[in-house]
Amino acid sequence: MPEIVECVPNFSEGRDKAVVDKIAAPFTQQEGVKLLDVQTDGDHNRMVVTAIGSPQGMKTAVIAAMDQAVAHIDMTRHQGQHPRMGAVDVVPFIPIQELSMEEAVALSREVAAEAAARFDLPVFLYERSATAPHRANLAAIRKGQFEGMTAKLKDPLWQPDFGPTQVHPSAGVTAVGARAPLVAFNVNLGTDQTAVADAIAKKVRHIGGGLRYCKAMAVELEDRSLVQVSMNMTDFSQTALYRALEVIRMEARRYGVPVVGSEVVGLVPMQALIDCAAYYMGLENFGMKQILEHHLL
Amino acid sequence: MPEIVECVPNFSEGRDKAVVDKIAAPFTQQEGVKLLDVQTDGDHNRMVVTAIGSPQGMKTAVIAAMDQAVAHIDMTRHQGQHPRMGAVDVVPFIPIQELSMEEAVALSREVAAEAAARFDLPVFLYERSATAPHRANLAAIRKGQFEGMTAKLKDPLWQPDFGPTQVHPSAGVTAVGARAPLVAFNVNLGTDQTAVADAIAKKVRHIGGGLRYCKAMAVELEDRSLVQVSMNMTDFSQTALYRALEVIRMEARRYGVPVVGSEVVGLVPMQALIDCAAYYMGLENFGMKQILEHHLL
Repeated sequence: MPEIVECVPNFSEGRDKAVVDKIAAPFTQQEGVKLLDVQTDGDHNRMVVTAIGSPQGMKTAVIAAMDQAVAHIDMTRHQGQHPRMGAVDVVPFIPIQELSMEEAVALSREVAAEAAARFDLPVFLYERSATAPHRANLAAIRKGQFEGMTAKLKDPLWQPDFGPTQVHPSAGVTAVGARAPLVAFNVNLGTDQTAVADAIAKKVRHIGGGLRYCKAMAVELEDRSLVQVSMNMTDFSQTALYRALEVIRMEARRYGVPVVGSEVVGLVPMQALIDCAAYYMGLENFGMKQILEHHLL
Repeated sequence: MPEIVECVPNFSEGRDKAVVDKIAAPFTQQEGVKLLDVQTDGDHNRMVVTAIGSPQGMKTAVIAAMDQAVAHIDMTRHQGQHPRMGAVDVVPFIPIQELSMEEAVALSREVAAEAAARFDLPVFLYERSATAPHRANLAAIRKGQFEGMTAKLKDPLWQPDFGPTQVHPSAGVTAVGARAPLVAFNVNLGTDQTAVADAIAKKVRHIGGGLRYCKAMAVELEDRSLVQVSMNMTDFSQTALYRALEVIRMEARRYGVPVVGSEVVGLVPMQALIDCAAYYMGLENFGMKQILEHHLL
């Protein structure tokens, strides 16, 4: 099986289709890389690319995409609802196959160093690549946004890991890092009371004393008269999806509310669902090599 | 995604390693084909090859392997515990990816016709390729075994689909056909009473009024003081694994016996386990394209 990395870079352009296409193009042109998705949001004025491929192919494609973003996005004129600090806002690398987290971190450092040198861009390493605990969280790095970065980079705690200590005049600042695959997993509850979903969300999530790799919030599904605990599972290999589901079911009992369904939004690694099947079936001694398609990868 | 077929041919040689290797070799040498497993059993005097690959590559490899088997196996001298009727006993084709059952049937007919012509071998089409209902079941075709085939082929009901109506003097008779993937799925019960597993096996299986694509029997796990309902799920897309598991759990209740685990033996298509995860999680609107690895296939 070949080494496969996923990359989900976010760029601060979601309105100008010509620029969006230029930024996405390298992921379709690079050998060994497959573009899976390009999402644009006009309100956020932001685009999110999802691509998979070989580490070195991905590096080449990402650098080329960053080149386009730096050339065509002017952050001094950028407006949008989503927090952002640079033309290339954030570049996460996710190890998918035959690649360790350490190797993904090494790849992120390579890309960060090359981008900083080529584009004269301050780059922060974040998440698993972070060089200090206070720099792991993207929200902490991005706090102050593009407009606040000039002041922030004067703080000794916020010196970039690569590149100049001055904000790039039009492209701002970028974060690059490795992280575990993120799974968007929602659990629907058989009630229209948002307060119930809200109370449960606060218990299942890490910051509320819940599961370590789980972020959660309540969402109302008005058209179905249901509420939802909407989650980001930030490391399913440590906090399995079934565990979040069963904790929610358990907490919902005190409200007399049933779990009526769940959904995975977007992509999910096969292992995350196989882990759930294995738990509910009580599967013994199961190995991923027993999956027929494993041998096609 | 490319078209992928699985082939699990059974040959009547499980003792002579030189012959086993000659028969398996085409599956390692053919481009577009991957040999996953070769199982030999000395008592059965039989080998089972598991290979996946492109339909045309598989056809070439299988014909080459049959050539070796016909050349090196003499059924007049064959002894073994497993029922058998030919040097190439049975050749099942299983559609795995981007291939319909109809296309797998067409492939099996191509292989049957070519093998019959090249090796002067009577070939029966079986399972989904069968040309009459009484010929669908392999056991019915094989009844009488090699020694009884000369008489059997005189019966108008048992004329081969391809090839001569005389048994090949040394290679006997072969069955070729398309079928759904078979999953070996066992459910362990928290009792040492084989009679309980036996009673449940008889209820869950098709011939006992149970699930249509389920064969089942009781097995004793002596070293664990447990019993097992050992199943062959012959079409998981129609009879899901979770359904068999839950029917067994339900039947076990009347004996006060818990389900304590389950196991999948050998290979299983990803879909079979994703279906189970989706059932137990109540997953809504899930599509296989959401599986990240799907995009690597």
